[in-house]
Amino acid sequence: MKKLKLGIIGYGFMGQWHNNHAGTMDEVEIVAVCDTDSKQLEKVKEGIKRYSDYKELLLDNEVDWVMISVPNHLHKMIAIDAAYAKKNIIVEKPCALTVDEFDQMYEAAQQNGVIFTVDQNRRWDRDYSMVKLAVSENKLGKVYMVKSSLSGVFGKMHDWHVYKQYGGGMLYDWGVHLIDQILDLIPGKITQICADMKSVVNEEVDDYFKVMLYFESGLAAEIELGTLLLNKMPRWYVSGDSGTMVVENIKADTGAIYRAGIMQKALPENVKNLDAGPTRTFSTKAEDVVCTEALPEITRKHNDWNDFFRNLLGFINETEELIVRPEQVRRVLQVMEAVRKSAELRKSVDFE
Amino acid sequence: MKKLKLGIIGYGFMGQWHNNHAGTMDEVEIVAVCDTDSKQLEKVKEGIKRYSDYKELLLDNEVDWVMISVPNHLHKMIAIDAAYAKKNIIVEKPCALTVDEFDQMYEAAQQNGVIFTVDQNRRWDRDYSMVKLAVSENKLGKVYMVKSSLSGVFGKMHDWHVYKQYGGGMLYDWGVHLIDQILDLIPGKITQICADMKSVVNEEVDDYFKVMLYFESGLAAEIELGTLLLNKMPRWYVSGDSGTMVVENIKADTGAIYRAGIMQKALPENVKNLDAGPTRTFSTKAEDVVCTEALPEITRKHNDWNDFFRNLLGFINETEELIVRPEQVRRVLQVMEAVRKSAELRKSVDFE
Repeated sequence: MKKLKLGIIGYGFMGQWHNNHAGTMDEVEIVAVCDTDSKQLEKVKEGIKRYSDYKELLLDNEVDWVMISVPNHLHKMIAIDAAYAKKNIIVEKPCALTVDEFDQMYEAAQQNGVIFTVDQNRRWDRDYSMVKLAVSENKLGKVYMVKSSLSGVFGKMHDWHVYKQYGGGMLYDWGVHLIDQILDLIPGKITQICADMKSVVNEEVDDYFKVMLYFESGLAAEIELGTLLLNKMPRWYVSGDSGTMVVENIKADTGAIYRAGIMQKALPENVKNLDAGPTRTFSTKAEDVVCTEALPEITRKHNDWNDFFRNLLGFINETEELIVRPEQVRRVLQVMEAVRKSAELRKSVDFE
Repeated sequence: MKKLKLGIIGYGFMGQWHNNHAGTMDEVEIVAVCDTDSKQLEKVKEGIKRYSDYKELLLDNEVDWVMISVPNHLHKMIAIDAAYAKKNIIVEKPCALTVDEFDQMYEAAQQNGVIFTVDQNRRWDRDYSMVKLAVSENKLGKVYMVKSSLSGVFGKMHDWHVYKQYGGGMLYDWGVHLIDQILDLIPGKITQICADMKSVVNEEVDDYFKVMLYFESGLAAEIELGTLLLNKMPRWYVSGDSGTMVVENIKADTGAIYRAGIMQKALPENVKNLDAGPTRTFSTKAEDVVCTEALPEITRKHNDWNDFFRNLLGFINETEELIVRPEQVRRVLQVMEAVRKSAELRKSVDFE
C-alpha cells in the first residue's frame, strides 16, 4: 500500500493540526515541515526535517505530497511551485482567493501530472453527515427548505483572518465550508444567488453574511453566518413535506426529526388558546401534535477529519474515488464570487 | 366624546372576534351585523340588528362605521359601496388583493370624505412592541440583521384560506402582518426584494415563504413563514453590534437580550474544546462569555387589539394621529406584489 509522505508548508494552527492528527496515521508520514517563523519550527518533533524556505522543502526528494497551510493569499504561488516540483498537492481551504487563481493552480497541477485536492474536511462533519443521510434516504419527504447557520459570540476573528490582504474574513474562512456542504448536498444547477454581507465588528473583512441559493430544482437554500450572533441558531434546519430536521450544533449531539401528527389533517375547530391572538394556524398549543424522532445514527461519533486522508490513500491505492474533486472546489469559489458580487450590488445575480 | 357605531359585515371568525372584543368597549357600539349565512346570524346577540345583505346594512342610518370582515376577494366591492353610502371604513387585513384594488377603494373613500383604515392589529402585538422598543431605544447598538419568523405545525390552512379565488394563502393572511411590522420598524426606502414562495401541503395557495428586504440604509431584513415548519423558530431574532435580541414566540413570554462579555475583546488563545473540530471562532464553549438581560418591559401584558379601536377613537376625537395610515397599507401591498414577482421570476426585483 502506498503511503503519503507529507511535507507541511506553514506550521500555524492548521499545520500543527495536521501534524497532530493525520501525522498519527500509519499510512501518513510527516517528512518535513516548513515555516518562516523559527518559533513555530521549534514545535516540530525530533526526526522531522525543518525548513524555513518552502522552496527548499520542495527540493526534498523524500516529500511526495505537500500540505499548503499558509495564509490564503500565498496558496496560489506555493501550489504552482509545488506542481512544477512534481509534488502532489493538498491545499488548505479556501483553495484560492478567486476562480482565476484556482485555474492557474489547477492548470499547473495538470501540466505536471500531480494530484490536486483541497482539505474541505467539513464534508465529513457529523452534523452534515446526518443531514446528508436524512436527505438521501428521503426521511423528510420532498425537501423544500434548507438552512445552514453558524452563530458565534466572539465577534473578532483571529490571527491574519482579520486582514483583507491575507485573504481574511468569514466568507473565505467558513463560508467555503458551508457552501461546499450545500453544493454537495443539493444536486443540480444554481440559477440565482442573492446575498447580504457585512463587517459588523471587524474593520477590514466580512464577519456576517446571509446567502440564498436558488436551485433549478425549485429548492432555495439559505446560509447564514455571523461572528456576533449571540444566541445560537440551529446549525441545520431542513424541512420536507413529511418532516423537519433540526441539528442544533456542530457536535450534533442535540436535535431531532419532527413529524406532524394527526392534527395535520384537521385544524382545531375551536381555538381555545388565544395567547397569540386570533390565529388558528399558529396557535401556541401546536406543540402537542408534533412527534419527535431521534436524529439518524451516524457511525462517526466525533468529527474525524482523518477521513479526508483515508480517502486520499484510497484514491492513490486505486480503491476509492477522490471525494474532494477540483471541479467542485472551483464551483464553490464561483459561488463565493457571486456572493460578493450580489452583496455589493445589493441584488441577486445570475449563476450557471 | 364621539363613539364608534359599528356595523360588522361578515360574521365569520374575525367578525365574531370583533363583536366579542371591540364590542365590549364602552366607546364601541355594535349596531348591526351582516352575514349571508343564516347560521352565523343566529350567533348574534339580542338587540343587535341582523342583515343578510350588506347593502341593507349600508342603508342603516344608525351605522357610522363598517368593519369589513368577509373573505379577501370581497373587500374591494363592499368597501367601495360603503364609501358611497358615506360610512367610515375599517377593512380586515389584507385590505386588498392588489395595489390596484386598494387604489380604487381608497379613491372611493376620499371622494366620499370617509375615514379609511385597516385592521393591522398586529402593530400592537406584544412581541413586536418589544422589538420596536428595543430598536428605538438603541438597546442593541447599530442593528445589522432582523429576522421575523413564524413556524406552524398544522400544514393545512382553514376555511376559505385554502382557495385562491377567495384571496387565500399565507402571504395574504400573515405575510401582510409580518411585512407591515417590518415596514413600521425599519425606516427608509427598500431598494430590492428577493423571495422564495411555495405550496408545500396546500394545493392552490402558498403556505411557505422567505423574503429578503434590502433597505437603502444597508440593513437587510428577512421574513420567513411556513405552516409546516415542525420545530419552532424564534419569532424574532434581531442583532446589532452591541447585542442580540431573541423573542421566542408571539406571547413574548420567553426570550432575552444577549450581550458579549469580556471575551469579545480577546479570542481564546488555547482552544481546549474541539468537539466542533478546529475552530476557535465557533468553539462550543462560547456560551460561557455571553451575558443575558431580560426582554424590555412592555406594559401590555397580553396582546390587546382593542388598542386599534382606541387609536381610532382618539383619531375621531382629535386627540391622536391615525396609526394605521392608508399610504402604509398601500406600501405593504406593493411589497407583497414584489414578493410574488420575485418568487415567480426566482430573482430579486427592484423596489422604490
